[in-house]
Amino acid sequence: MADIAHRIGVTCTPEAVYRALTTVDGLAGWWTRDTDGDGDAGGVLRFGFEPGACAMKVLETRPAAHVLWETVEGPQEWMGTRIRFDLSKEGDYTIVLFRHEGWREPVEFMAHCSTKWAIFLMSLKRMVETGQGEPAPDDVRISDWH
Amino acid sequence: MADIAHRIGVTCTPEAVYRALTTVDGLAGWWTRDTDGDGDAGGVLRFGFEPGACAMKVLETRPAAHVLWETVEGPQEWMGTRIRFDLSKEGDYTIVLFRHEGWREPVEFMAHCSTKWAIFLMSLKRMVETGQGEPAPDDVRISDWH
Repeated sequence: MADIAHRIGVTCTPEAVYRALTTVDGLAGWWTRDTDGDGDAGGVLRFGFEPGACAMKVLETRPAAHVLWETVEGPQEWMGTRIRFDLSKEGDYTIVLFRHEGWREPVEFMAHCSTKWAIFLMSLKRMVETGQGEPAPDDVRISDWH
Repeated sequence: MADIAHRIGVTCTPEAVYRALTTVDGLAGWWTRDTDGDGDAGGVLRFGFEPGACAMKVLETRPAAHVLWETVEGPQEWMGTRIRFDLSKEGDYTIVLFRHEGWREPVEFMAHCSTKWAIFLMSLKRMVETGQGEPAPDDVRISDWH
Protein backbone atom coordinates (compact mmCIF):
# COMPACT_ATOMS: atom_id res chain seq x y z
CA MET A 1 0.00 0.00 0.00
CA ALA A 2 1.19 3.54 -0.76
CA ASP A 3 -0.15 6.96 0.19
CA ILE A 4 -0.06 10.52 -1.10
CA ALA A 5 0.21 13.17 1.63
CA HIS A 6 0.16 16.97 1.55
CA ARG A 7 0.04 19.76 4.13
CA ILE A 8 -1.05 23.35 3.55
CA GLY A 9 -1.98 26.23 5.84
CA VAL A 10 -4.95 28.46 5.05
CA THR A 11 -5.43 31.87 6.70
CA CYS A 12 -9.08 31.39 7.68
CA THR A 13 -11.17 29.44 10.16
CA PRO A 14 -11.43 25.64 10.15
CA GLU A 15 -15.17 26.16 9.59
CA ALA A 16 -14.51 27.93 6.27
CA VAL A 17 -12.25 25.11 5.05
CA TYR A 18 -14.78 22.53 6.21
CA ARG A 19 -17.50 24.23 4.11
CA ALA A 20 -15.17 24.08 1.09
CA LEU A 21 -14.86 20.30 1.60
CA THR A 22 -18.48 19.40 2.33
CA THR A 23 -20.68 21.61 0.15
CA VAL A 24 -21.20 21.37 -3.62
CA ASP A 25 -20.51 25.11 -4.03
CA GLY A 26 -17.34 24.83 -1.98
CA LEU A 27 -15.96 21.83 -3.86
CA ALA A 28 -16.91 23.40 -7.22
CA GLY A 29 -14.85 26.43 -6.26
CA TRP A 30 -11.50 24.63 -6.04
CA TRP A 31 -11.63 21.05 -7.40
CA THR A 32 -14.01 20.90 -10.37
CA ARG A 33 -16.92 23.11 -11.40
CA ASP A 34 -18.71 19.89 -12.43
CA THR A 35 -19.59 18.79 -8.87
CA ASP A 36 -22.88 17.49 -7.53
CA GLY A 37 -24.26 15.24 -4.82
CA ASP A 38 -24.30 15.31 -1.05
CA GLY A 39 -21.18 16.08 1.01
CA ASP A 40 -22.53 14.92 4.37
CA ALA A 41 -21.68 11.54 5.93
CA GLY A 42 -23.54 8.79 4.06
CA GLY A 43 -23.83 10.91 0.90
CA VAL A 44 -22.15 10.44 -2.47
CA LEU A 45 -20.35 13.23 -4.35
CA ARG A 46 -19.80 13.12 -8.12
CA PHE A 47 -16.97 15.03 -9.77
CA GLY A 48 -16.52 15.49 -13.53
CA PHE A 49 -13.16 16.16 -15.21
CA GLU A 50 -12.02 16.29 -18.82
CA PRO A 51 -10.32 12.88 -18.61
CA GLY A 52 -13.35 11.29 -16.85
CA ALA A 53 -15.46 11.35 -13.70
CA CYS A 54 -15.25 9.97 -10.19
CA ALA A 55 -17.60 9.48 -7.26
CA MET A 56 -16.79 9.52 -3.57
CA LYS A 57 -18.87 8.04 -0.78
CA VAL A 58 -18.65 10.29 2.27
CA LEU A 59 -17.69 7.92 5.10
CA GLU A 60 -17.07 10.37 7.94
CA THR A 61 -17.41 14.07 8.69
CA ARG A 62 -16.67 15.99 11.90
CA PRO A 63 -17.49 19.71 11.61
CA ALA A 64 -14.40 21.93 11.26
CA ALA A 65 -12.13 18.91 11.82
CA HIS A 66 -12.33 15.90 9.50
CA VAL A 67 -13.65 14.56 6.21
CA LEU A 68 -13.15 11.00 4.89
CA TRP A 69 -14.22 9.78 1.43
CA GLU A 70 -13.95 6.43 -0.33
CA THR A 71 -13.67 6.25 -4.12
CA VAL A 72 -16.66 4.29 -5.47
CA GLU A 73 -16.27 5.27 -9.15
CA GLY A 74 -13.27 6.56 -11.05
CA PRO A 75 -9.92 5.49 -12.43
CA GLN A 76 -9.24 1.81 -11.76
CA GLU A 77 -6.20 2.73 -9.61
CA TRP A 78 -8.44 4.90 -7.37
CA MET A 79 -11.12 2.31 -6.65
CA GLY A 80 -11.33 1.63 -2.92
CA THR A 81 -8.73 4.27 -2.06
CA ARG A 82 -9.63 6.78 0.67
CA ILE A 83 -9.21 10.54 0.71
CA ARG A 84 -8.86 12.19 4.10
CA PHE A 85 -8.75 15.83 5.16
CA ASP A 86 -7.80 16.63 8.78
CA LEU A 87 -8.09 20.24 9.94
CA SER A 88 -6.39 21.85 12.92
CA LYS A 89 -5.62 25.37 14.08
CA GLU A 90 -1.98 26.54 14.31
CA GLY A 91 -1.64 30.25 15.09
CA ASP A 92 -3.11 32.25 12.19
CA TYR A 93 -3.46 29.17 10.01
CA THR A 94 -5.93 26.36 9.58
CA ILE A 95 -3.69 23.40 8.72
CA VAL A 96 -5.08 20.96 6.17
CA LEU A 97 -3.43 17.56 6.38
CA PHE A 98 -4.46 15.68 3.25
CA ARG A 99 -4.00 11.99 2.51
CA HIS A 100 -5.03 9.87 -0.47
CA GLU A 101 -4.47 6.43 1.02
CA GLY A 102 -4.44 2.81 -0.01
CA TRP A 103 -2.94 2.78 -3.51
CA ARG A 104 -2.13 -0.84 -4.33
CA GLU A 105 1.13 0.12 -6.10
CA PRO A 106 3.18 3.34 -6.29
CA VAL A 107 2.57 3.58 -10.06
CA GLU A 108 3.52 6.57 -12.25
CA PHE A 109 -0.15 7.67 -12.25
CA MET A 110 0.09 8.03 -8.46
CA ALA A 111 3.04 10.42 -8.91
CA HIS A 112 0.92 12.42 -11.38
CA CYS A 113 -2.02 12.51 -8.96
CA SER A 114 0.25 13.63 -6.12
CA THR A 115 1.38 16.67 -8.11
CA LYS A 116 -2.20 17.44 -9.21
CA TRP A 117 -3.46 17.18 -5.61
CA ALA A 118 -0.84 19.74 -4.52
CA ILE A 119 -2.03 22.10 -7.25
CA PHE A 120 -5.69 21.59 -6.30
CA LEU A 121 -4.95 22.11 -2.59
CA MET A 122 -3.29 25.42 -3.49
CA SER A 123 -6.51 26.19 -5.42
CA LEU A 124 -8.49 25.38 -2.24
CA LYS A 125 -6.21 27.73 -0.27
CA ARG A 126 -6.69 30.54 -2.80
CA MET A 127 -10.44 30.00 -3.02
CA VAL A 128 -10.95 30.24 0.74
CA GLU A 129 -8.51 33.14 1.16
CA THR A 130 -9.49 35.24 -1.87
CA GLY A 131 -12.82 33.88 -3.14
CA GLN A 132 -11.20 32.70 -6.39
CA GLY A 133 -9.87 29.15 -6.90
CA GLU A 134 -8.72 27.41 -10.07
CA PRO A 135 -11.06 24.40 -10.37
CA ALA A 136 -11.18 22.13 -13.43
CA PRO A 137 -11.60 22.75 -16.32
CA ASP A 138 -9.50 25.88 -15.58
CA ASP A 139 -6.92 23.98 -13.53
CA VAL A 140 -3.18 24.28 -14.19
CA ARG A 141 -2.03 21.76 -16.80
CA ILE A 142 1.07 19.99 -15.52
CA SER A 143 1.81 17.46 -18.31
CA ASP A 144 0.46 15.28 -21.15
CA TRP A 145 -1.74 13.56 -18.53
CA HIS A 146 -3.23 16.98 -17.79
CA MET B 1 10.04 3.50 4.57
CA ALA B 2 7.90 6.05 2.75
CA ASP B 3 8.40 8.01 -0.47
CA ILE B 4 7.27 11.25 -2.04
CA ALA B 5 6.62 11.02 -5.81
CA HIS B 6 5.67 13.61 -8.42
CA ARG B 7 5.34 13.68 -12.22
CA ILE B 8 5.39 16.75 -14.47
CA GLY B 9 5.79 17.28 -18.22
CA VAL B 10 7.97 20.08 -19.55
CA THR B 11 7.74 21.31 -23.15
CA CYS B 12 11.48 21.24 -23.89
CA THR B 13 14.25 18.74 -24.49
CA PRO B 14 15.49 16.29 -21.84
CA GLU B 15 18.88 18.00 -22.23
CA ALA B 16 17.43 21.35 -21.07
CA VAL B 17 15.85 19.76 -17.98
CA TYR B 18 19.08 17.88 -17.25
CA ARG B 19 21.01 21.18 -17.27
CA ALA B 20 18.49 22.61 -14.79
CA LEU B 21 19.23 19.65 -12.45
CA THR B 22 23.02 19.48 -12.74
CA THR B 23 24.33 23.06 -12.99
CA VAL B 24 24.47 25.69 -10.24
CA ASP B 25 22.80 28.27 -12.51
CA GLY B 26 20.04 25.82 -13.43
CA LEU B 27 19.30 24.80 -9.83
CA ALA B 28 19.44 28.44 -8.67
CA GLY B 29 16.76 29.24 -11.26
CA TRP B 30 14.05 27.04 -9.76
CA TRP B 31 14.94 25.67 -6.30
CA THR B 32 16.95 28.26 -4.37
CA ARG B 33 19.05 31.19 -5.52
CA ASP B 34 21.49 30.26 -2.74
CA THR B 35 23.02 27.24 -4.56
CA ASP B 36 26.65 26.29 -4.95
CA GLY B 37 28.87 23.25 -5.42
CA ASP B 38 29.29 20.64 -8.13
CA GLY B 39 26.31 18.92 -9.78
CA ASP B 40 28.28 16.13 -11.46
CA ALA B 41 28.52 12.59 -10.08
CA GLY B 42 30.80 12.56 -7.04
CA GLY B 43 30.18 16.26 -6.36
CA VAL B 44 28.33 17.88 -3.48
CA LEU B 45 25.68 20.59 -3.92
CA ARG B 46 24.77 23.03 -1.12
CA PHE B 47 21.37 24.71 -1.00
CA GLY B 48 20.42 27.54 1.37
CA PHE B 49 16.84 28.32 2.44
CA GLU B 50 15.33 30.67 5.01
CA PRO B 51 14.59 27.82 7.45
CA GLY B 52 18.09 26.28 7.00
CA ALA B 53 20.45 24.66 4.51
CA CYS B 54 20.98 21.22 3.04
CA ALA B 55 23.68 19.43 1.07
CA MET B 56 23.31 16.65 -1.47
CA LYS B 57 25.98 14.24 -2.59
CA VAL B 58 25.52 13.53 -6.30
CA LEU B 59 25.53 9.74 -6.51
CA GLU B 60 24.62 9.18 -10.18
CA THR B 61 24.07 11.20 -13.33
CA ARG B 62 23.21 10.03 -16.84
CA PRO B 63 22.98 12.90 -19.35
CA ALA B 64 19.42 13.81 -20.34
CA ALA B 65 18.08 10.84 -18.35
CA HIS B 66 18.80 10.52 -14.63
CA VAL B 67 20.06 12.30 -11.52
CA LEU B 68 20.35 10.76 -8.04
CA TRP B 69 21.32 12.64 -4.87
CA GLU B 70 21.73 11.60 -1.26
CA THR B 71 21.10 14.06 1.57
CA VAL B 72 24.32 14.50 3.58
CA GLU B 73 23.30 17.64 5.50
CA GLY B 74 19.86 19.05 6.24
CA PRO B 75 16.76 18.45 8.35
CA GLN B 76 17.15 15.38 10.54
CA GLU B 77 14.23 13.67 8.73
CA TRP B 78 16.07 14.11 5.38
CA MET B 79 19.40 12.57 6.42
CA GLY B 80 20.18 9.57 4.24
CA THR B 81 17.10 10.03 2.06
CA ARG B 82 17.59 10.02 -1.72
CA ILE B 83 16.22 12.37 -4.35
CA ARG B 84 15.84 10.97 -7.84
CA PHE B 85 14.90 12.61 -11.14
CA ASP B 86 14.19 10.35 -14.14
CA LEU B 87 13.66 11.99 -17.52
CA SER B 88 11.93 10.53 -20.57
CA LYS B 89 10.42 11.84 -23.79
CA GLU B 90 6.64 11.53 -24.36
CA GLY B 91 5.45 13.36 -27.49
CA ASP B 92 6.03 17.09 -27.03
CA TYR B 93 6.91 16.68 -23.35
CA THR B 94 9.95 15.74 -21.34
CA ILE B 95 8.49 13.82 -18.43
CA VAL B 96 10.17 14.35 -15.07
CA LEU B 97 9.48 11.53 -12.65
CA PHE B 98 10.62 12.73 -9.23
CA ARG B 99 11.05 10.71 -6.06
CA HIS B 100 12.25 11.66 -2.58
CA GLU B 101 12.78 8.20 -1.17
CA GLY B 102 13.57 6.52 2.10
CA TRP B 103 11.77 8.56 4.76
CA ARG B 104 11.85 6.54 7.98
CA GLU B 105 8.27 7.56 8.90
CA PRO B 106 5.44 9.30 6.99
CA VAL B 107 5.55 12.28 9.39
CA GLU B 108 3.62 15.55 8.94
CA PHE B 109 6.85 17.23 7.77
CA MET B 110 6.95 14.73 4.88
CA ALA B 111 3.45 15.88 3.83
CA HIS B 112 4.70 19.49 3.93
CA CYS B 113 7.77 18.60 1.84
CA SER B 114 5.61 16.76 -0.71
CA THR B 115 3.51 19.89 -1.31
CA LYS B 116 6.64 22.09 -1.47
CA TRP B 117 8.30 19.71 -3.95
CA ALA B 118 5.24 19.97 -6.24
CA ILE B 119 5.47 23.77 -6.10
CA PHE B 120 9.23 23.70 -6.81
CA LEU B 121 8.79 21.24 -9.70
CA MET B 122 6.24 23.64 -11.22
CA SER B 123 8.92 26.33 -10.75
CA LEU B 124 11.37 24.08 -12.63
CA LYS B 125 8.79 23.67 -15.43
CA ARG B 126 8.26 27.42 -15.67
CA MET B 127 11.97 28.20 -15.56
CA VAL B 128 12.80 25.84 -18.41
CA GLU B 129 9.75 26.84 -20.50
CA THR B 130 9.81 30.61 -19.94
CA GLY B 131 13.23 31.46 -18.46
CA GLN B 132 11.64 32.55 -15.15
CA GLY B 133 11.21 30.21 -12.17
CA GLU B 134 10.22 30.98 -8.58
CA PRO B 135 13.22 29.81 -6.52
CA ALA B 136 13.59 30.50 -2.79
CA PRO B 137 13.50 33.05 -1.24
CA ASP B 138 10.76 34.06 -3.74
CA ASP B 139 8.98 30.69 -3.56
CA VAL B 140 5.27 30.38 -2.88
CA ARG B 141 4.53 30.24 0.86
CA ILE B 142 2.14 27.37 1.54
CA SER B 143 1.78 27.46 5.36
CA ASP B 144 3.31 28.37 8.73
CA TRP B 145 6.17 25.96 7.86
CA HIS B 146 6.80 28.09 4.76
